[in-house]
Amino acid sequence: MKRIVWSFFILTAAMALQAEDGHQLWLRYQPVNKAKVVTEASSPTISIAKQELETYYNGENVTLKLDATMPDDDGYRIEGSTISARRDAGLLYGAFALLRGQYGDSHPTFNLRLLNHWDNLDGSIERGYAGESIFEWFKLDEQLIRDYARANASIGINGSVLNNVNASPKILTTPYLKEVKKIADILRPYGIKVYLSINFASPMALGETKTADPLNKSVAKWWQKKAKEIYKLIPDFGGFLVKANSEGQPGPGDYNRTHADGANMLADALKPFNGIVMWRCFVYGANHKGEDRVKQAVSEFKPLDGLFRDNVILQTKNGPLDFQPREPYSPIFDQIKKTPNMVELQITQEYLGQSRHLVYLAPMWKEFFDYVSPSQLKGIAGVANIGKDRNWCGHHFSQANWYAFGRLAWNPDLSSNTIAEEWLELTFTNDKRFVDSMMRLMEMSREACVKYMMPLGLHHIFKFDHHYGPEPDGFIASYPLEWCPVYYHKANNDSIGFDRSHTGTNATSQYRKDIADMYDNIETCPEDLLLWFHRVPWTYKMKDGSTLWESLQFEYQLGVIMVETMQTTWHYKMRNFVDEQRWREVDERLADQLQNAREWRDVCLNYFGQFATKQ
Amino acid sequence: MKRIVWSFFILTAAMALQAEDGHQLWLRYQPVNKAKVVTEASSPTISIAKQELETYYNGENVTLKLDATMPDDDGYRIEGSTISARRDAGLLYGAFALLRGQYGDSHPTFNLRLLNHWDNLDGSIERGYAGESIFEWFKLDEQLIRDYARANASIGINGSVLNNVNASPKILTTPYLKEVKKIADILRPYGIKVYLSINFASPMALGETKTADPLNKSVAKWWQKKAKEIYKLIPDFGGFLVKANSEGQPGPGDYNRTHADGANMLADALKPFNGIVMWRCFVYGANHKGEDRVKQAVSEFKPLDGLFRDNVILQTKNGPLDFQPREPYSPIFDQIKKTPNMVELQITQEYLGQSRHLVYLAPMWKEFFDYVSPSQLKGIAGVANIGKDRNWCGHHFSQANWYAFGRLAWNPDLSSNTIAEEWLELTFTNDKRFVDSMMRLMEMSREACVKYMMPLGLHHIFKFDHHYGPEPDGFIASYPLEWCPVYYHKANNDSIGFDRSHTGTNATSQYRKDIADMYDNIETCPEDLLLWFHRVPWTYKMKDGSTLWESLQFEYQLGVIMVETMQTTWHYKMRNFVDEQRWREVDERLADQLQNAREWRDVCLNYFGQFATKQ
Repeated sequence: MKRIVWSFFILTAAMALQAEDGHQLWLRYQPVNKAKVVTEASSPTISIAKQELETYYNGENVTLKLDATMPDDDGYRIEGSTISARRDAGLLYGAFALLRGQYGDSHPTFNLRLLNHWDNLDGSIERGYAGESIFEWFKLDEQLIRDYARANASIGINGSVLNNVNASPKILTTPYLKEVKKIADILRPYGIKVYLSINFASPMALGETKTADPLNKSVAKWWQKKAKEIYKLIPDFGGFLVKANSEGQPGPGDYNRTHADGANMLADALKPFNGIVMWRCFVYGANHKGEDRVKQAVSEFKPLDGLFRDNVILQTKNGPLDFQPREPYSPIFDQIKKTPNMVELQITQEYLGQSRHLVYLAPMWKEFFDYVSPSQLKGIAGVANIGKDRNWCGHHFSQANWYAFGRLAWNPDLSSNTIAEEWLELTFTNDKRFVDSMMRLMEMSREACVKYMMPLGLHHIFKFDHHYGPEPDGFIASYPLEWCPVYYHKANNDSIGFDRSHTGTNATSQYRKDIADMYDNIETCPEDLLLWFHRVPWTYKMKDGSTLWESLQFEYQLGVIMVETMQTTWHYKMRNFVDEQRWREVDERLADQLQNAREWRDVCLNYFGQFATKQ
Repeated sequence: MKRIVWSFFILTAAMALQAEDGHQLWLRYQPVNKAKVVTEASSPTISIAKQELETYYNGENVTLKLDATMPDDDGYRIEGSTISARRDAGLLYGAFALLRGQYGDSHPTFNLRLLNHWDNLDGSIERGYAGESIFEWFKLDEQLIRDYARANASIGINGSVLNNVNASPKILTTPYLKEVKKIADILRPYGIKVYLSINFASPMALGETKTADPLNKSVAKWWQKKAKEIYKLIPDFGGFLVKANSEGQPGPGDYNRTHADGANMLADALKPFNGIVMWRCFVYGANHKGEDRVKQAVSEFKPLDGLFRDNVILQTKNGPLDFQPREPYSPIFDQIKKTPNMVELQITQEYLGQSRHLVYLAPMWKEFFDYVSPSQLKGIAGVANIGKDRNWCGHHFSQANWYAFGRLAWNPDLSSNTIAEEWLELTFTNDKRFVDSMMRLMEMSREACVKYMMPLGLHHIFKFDHHYGPEPDGFIASYPLEWCPVYYHKANNDSIGFDRSHTGTNATSQYRKDIADMYDNIETCPEDLLLWFHRVPWTYKMKDGSTLWESLQFEYQLGVIMVETMQTTWHYKMRNFVDEQRWREVDERLADQLQNAREWRDVCLNYFGQFATKQ
């Protein structure tokens, strides 16, 4: 009998362990139902703050206090057991901070802290690697959306663009807008506004106008009416995100109008309701077709600076190309001075191993802030890596990128290590033996990825379309040249790299003076961007005395060694700190990652070796 | 014509590069013939000091001064451009220090700083991996021996035992002694005394006595006469090194006499000439046969402590077993208190990859000094890694071990890193890019070796006889059990390791109290010696939370990763700092080392896995 009981116990324990699917993210507080929350204020948001604390806070009673003397932002102050804030949302953020054991004054650096979902209305997600969209139109899973809202609130995210920037006009139809309202109602108490990506040609596509010309009155009117409809349903609707005249999307250029014409027309429609327009600068192959792709955004938008309405923000990817493992920052942040800027980061790892590779992105984002001061930016957007996979992000460690995005959106001064530490402790265990090891591995993971994929400034030599593996010989005549890997590395028997210095496309000239000088001179250009800015002979002597070709081989090899270290450490050393399911799922992915890293190394070195060893 | 000249130039330059065979060791000063040396003293040793400085010193004139007020040792003082010393040798050491750019006062920690050559009279070398012996009897290469002497003098080595401890009686015959005299005459001006290993049964073996019983008068007389003969030829002869009653060598035990009886008889013979006897404690399988091998030396010698003449020194290997990649220190250094001790280190890498692996031994020797204070020791001996290979040591980086031995024999407080830095700069280049990288790799190389061969305290699972590869299943019934790998790891389905705690052989009790307690308790025993002292279940939880079996796999894997890092760095990054020949020879060896490291990992994990995964 004893034996049966014992077996049963083991079975139950094993099942409990197996049931750890990662769905809880970093929100693993056990209900203790200990603290009482005292507050004179009341609102749905404050109720959530109250409930979180009363359920999970393992300390004394807490007072929540609205304080109109505090700065008018989402910040909070935690003193003793009192949380004060100017806004309801501040109290909620303060509650989550207290649960994490963080005290003192804290104010967000960016007022706009948005997730961009590239979710299509059919449930698919562009560059999504974690299953289908959590926004299931006309059959919304409200609990799932509430869980999503809670997770966002816990890290300070205050806006969600619900749909893909390659937007379907249908999203603006009344049936969809009613669904959007439902989502907005769920998100609102968590301090999150909804935004929509719109198709610039929506009125025409929906058959309600004959043109989408922004200077056409019927068009402008249509948008004004649509705005009114939206705000009636969702009074705090955030605004529109627009991808126009880019990669086949319609835009004002179709009518020989400028981006400013287009953006301003929408801005005018939203203005009465305090809505904003986030206009994306990810534009190439349009007016400046044929120019070095990384220059086209500045060429397009710099002349328009000063012509935008005050509720337009230009949203630009961190780098001038397209979310590569390493890019220099986008020079638009140096050139656009009269229009507010937002940076668009990519949380989903399109070019960084997707949901198969453990790559912690915070070090990459911190690198961006080394060059672009947060004070220059009005907001920050992250292309979400969230899907309907039970663990939300496909890879358990990809959750860290969602978390890190939120934390950096709140405070970009946090170190990537600090954020990793917080996340590891909240998500797995606070056993220092685990946390210290994994912090180190997370911190090195992005550099490893750069090395085994595209070291020394190489870029965009990914396989066509899916962007997972290497395709250094990629060339398809029917594709735009700037989609082809060979265009970016230009390897031949003498040299490799893209000359963007003054002897080449002069892309360096788009940077502010000191940076432009640094990048332009091969001697001062950081070697990790060397082949981005310069065309370099295989025999070129690197600063460490090796030749370029030797260095390239070294980098690829070292990248693989770094993944071996990660895989070995997880496989042999981390099992006892982690539940079986999460350990196994991460372990399987690390084995894949190692295989893929080796593939990158071998394919690229074989390919480049054909040239490099010809001399 | 121009073209021909150019081709010729390239050819010559290439040949010059190829001619770099490593023979110059760390003595690569270019003759500048600049400084004049002023000195009132004169001797062959001072002439050498003078010549070194006048040829190579790139500074102002130098004064050499004998100073009778200085401590009576080989030390020196460099102040301004004056070198002072009590002894001639001190001036020579000072000259080499000045050439290295070292200033100030410096005195050797050990007065006896000896190389032990395990060279046989037929030219072969026991555990030699760099060609035949440099001591070519009856056809001595005097220049080679002079080069050898200069190299030793440059790092302060002041004695050489010329022949193998498994000694041929013939070395004491007159013809050989006349050759020894020639060698002594070459070494003398370099401050180096010669010593000989002797066969304890020499008089009997040579047919000149009927016994070798140390208490037999004719035997004692023979040795007295022999000593007289030796000192007539070599007035400053250093003394004898003796391996007795060990691994088949004859000794006093053959006549039921003690080691003290044997050593004292020889000591008496040498005493009138100020000669010493270095009596080796590397004894097992004799009086204490059947006892845990690592205990036998203490069992044998502790009862004799206090019974030795004052010109006897006990010479003991650093660890109690046999020069494994990692051993605890030998407890004899805790137990022998009335008799002077010397430590015997092994420079030749018998168990550390021989001349195929890059393994820098200084960190291992420093580890010994962490436990055994140099002040407890009268001298230090290193089993040489020198042979007739053009580069002396087989592996170019094995030269670093010769160098480090000399430097630590002079000053065991030097860090292994400092010594590596000195050696790299002298031997290759002082380009910091090279030196910094290679310092790091050298420093990690011994830990890598431990990991890929025998981590966590495993020991002696080498292939029989040649000791290069792994043989964890090694067992030969006709061999002594303590030569068999299975005896040392004792792996079965439950556990692995050798219980030397109080529940086992109690070898831990031979250590001084605090250390004994630490090793004896599995909780406090350093994990890198765990399986040396304890028998441990495969499922045992290590301090980092992993199981023993997981940790063992991790260590082997990490060892290989470390070699990959070394190999990759050298292969891709170091070529441009090093001449072609040395770069290539090291590169080939690193490729071998990587292959061998993988073999170690795979063979050992396959073998142990049979047990560990059975549960």
